[in-house]
Amino acid sequence: MDSLPRPLLLTMGDAVGIGPEIIVHAFQRGAAAGVVVVGDLGAMRRGMSLVAEPRPLVVLASPADWPSCPPRCMPLWQPDGLPVGLDQLPWGKTDARAGAAAAACIEAAVRAVQRGDAAGIVTAPLHKAALAAAGIGFPGHTEMLQSLAGGMPVRMMLANDELRVVLVTIHMSLRDAIEAVTFDAVLDTLRIAHRSGDKLRIAVAGLNPHAGEDGLFGNEERLVIAPAVAAARAEGIDARGPFAPDTVFMRARRGEFDLVVAMTHDHGLIPVKYLGVEQGVNVTLGLPFVRTSPDHGTAFDIAGHGVADPSSLEAAIRWARRATARGGLSTAS
Amino acid sequence: MDSLPRPLLLTMGDAVGIGPEIIVHAFQRGAAAGVVVVGDLGAMRRGMSLVAEPRPLVVLASPADWPSCPPRCMPLWQPDGLPVGLDQLPWGKTDARAGAAAAACIEAAVRAVQRGDAAGIVTAPLHKAALAAAGIGFPGHTEMLQSLAGGMPVRMMLANDELRVVLVTIHMSLRDAIEAVTFDAVLDTLRIAHRSGDKLRIAVAGLNPHAGEDGLFGNEERLVIAPAVAAARAEGIDARGPFAPDTVFMRARRGEFDLVVAMTHDHGLIPVKYLGVEQGVNVTLGLPFVRTSPDHGTAFDIAGHGVADPSSLEAAIRWARRATARGGLSTAS
Repeated sequence: MDSLPRPLLLTMGDAVGIGPEIIVHAFQRGAAAGVVVVGDLGAMRRGMSLVAEPRPLVVLASPADWPSCPPRCMPLWQPDGLPVGLDQLPWGKTDARAGAAAAACIEAAVRAVQRGDAAGIVTAPLHKAALAAAGIGFPGHTEMLQSLAGGMPVRMMLANDELRVVLVTIHMSLRDAIEAVTFDAVLDTLRIAHRSGDKLRIAVAGLNPHAGEDGLFGNEERLVIAPAVAAARAEGIDARGPFAPDTVFMRARRGEFDLVVAMTHDHGLIPVKYLGVEQGVNVTLGLPFVRTSPDHGTAFDIAGHGVADPSSLEAAIRWARRATARGGLSTAS
Repeated sequence: MDSLPRPLLLTMGDAVGIGPEIIVHAFQRGAAAGVVVVGDLGAMRRGMSLVAEPRPLVVLASPADWPSCPPRCMPLWQPDGLPVGLDQLPWGKTDARAGAAAAACIEAAVRAVQRGDAAGIVTAPLHKAALAAAGIGFPGHTEMLQSLAGGMPVRMMLANDELRVVLVTIHMSLRDAIEAVTFDAVLDTLRIAHRSGDKLRIAVAGLNPHAGEDGLFGNEERLVIAPAVAAARAEGIDARGPFAPDTVFMRARRGEFDLVVAMTHDHGLIPVKYLGVEQGVNVTLGLPFVRTSPDHGTAFDIAGHGVADPSSLEAAIRWARRATARGGLSTAS
């Protein structure tokens, strides 16, 4: 906890995706107070051209200058060394320069938070193929942030008003995910999920249909997941399960649990996204700082049309604001 | 299509689960017109004791006698050779006799439909462990019905008012399910799903996160699923995909598709069940007769208390009634 006001940093994401326009739109709707954009001046100006009556843009030399920014403006910090000409790239086409710029903004934001110049990070969507084209070997934000922060175990949480899900495995094939569901991976997930809030009632979803049906449909529940749940309980974590994947999310939605730990990307994300992605927030748990993002991608198909919905980004900003206000590392209850 | 009125048969399910009471309750609520119960007289009488003002029970010698049944009654056909004393078994305890009786009712119902005495079958829940205790080697209704009907390819469809899902794999470990996602299995599923309605727009969910992300997270989409979708399209089936599993169900719920084909039990069932199981219906596609069931199990924890909700059973009856009225084999649009 400290008394100096510090901003949230909002990275621009892929310059030819919907990131710039939803950022401008969120400011225009008054939903981004206390936020400094980390991005490219030209790309953000192009985003402003897509939104009616955007807030004035104020360029800061450093996020530490944020307190001097007048109200009702959109403060921008442009890190050194971004590729030039980003505002000339065609909308919605994978481009290595856009990927390189997105990565540079993320790295700059992490370093600023580590210096104490900002309270946390919200990230607009990046494009995996553009990152790869730029020679950056991370499949997504989560892995990149984990590396920049020092490599500690982190987990992806997806949350909306009805459901919070923390994933044991994310960006790998389902085959590899089964192998990655180990005792340590499940127990680490439970520890990280437990620290994300206060007295959370955690449900653990199984891997197999009917949570293995007593071994008839798979043994991972008996051999791996149940022992990890028992070990977590012995540490004082209120973890229960493993439960049948097909009903545990419905049970959590009805209020029986505060959070569900899911073994695979899609077991967890299908229910979070089922009712619509507008309000979904992606939270990285385990980092030494707050980081959230919207629950959608770059939407190359509609980028540049000014029609993208900033709701999920705004929800991500709200979540990060609550989490940093609580002094919490990674969550808001 | 024929002009003789024929009933739907409603099998009792496990006698110590919630089957008897939800059947009695559905009749009492007027939701089971045109239905003949296939079950045990004692077990059904015990179910009647749990529901206020149940309909009078009328015992039929054969389902073919159904037209002689007075209105506002609950007609029961008790197949020969059921175990005795089912009404003395404790509620909610796995029992081989209850398993044997449930299986005998299903077999009798199938034979009656095959004789032309009934139009279709609705099944109340059975208990897998009770079936196994009775020495019956099927993991569930679907596999048993498939065998009784001659072994043709069948698929499980789960449907509610918002979403229809057809599953490529069901009761097996996730490891085995990955191996069972073959070109033939996906193409058969698409053919069966296509025949379940009229001009259905079918979305195919991938197996891996992001539908494999161009091979980065798995190859099943490129090697197996996409070729099967292409083959189905060449046959005139309106199949599209494979799409990312985490958003395709949301897209179908919004109206972009009529039906989603899912590779695994839980990819498909998590979204169908997420909003609550009361209105969910399980439909077996591919059989030469209509078969539906509620989307829940025997609920041993509450059986015998008279509190079980008959809504999903009533939805299953409605679905079967619509499907048989259309002369359709297995669906209702």
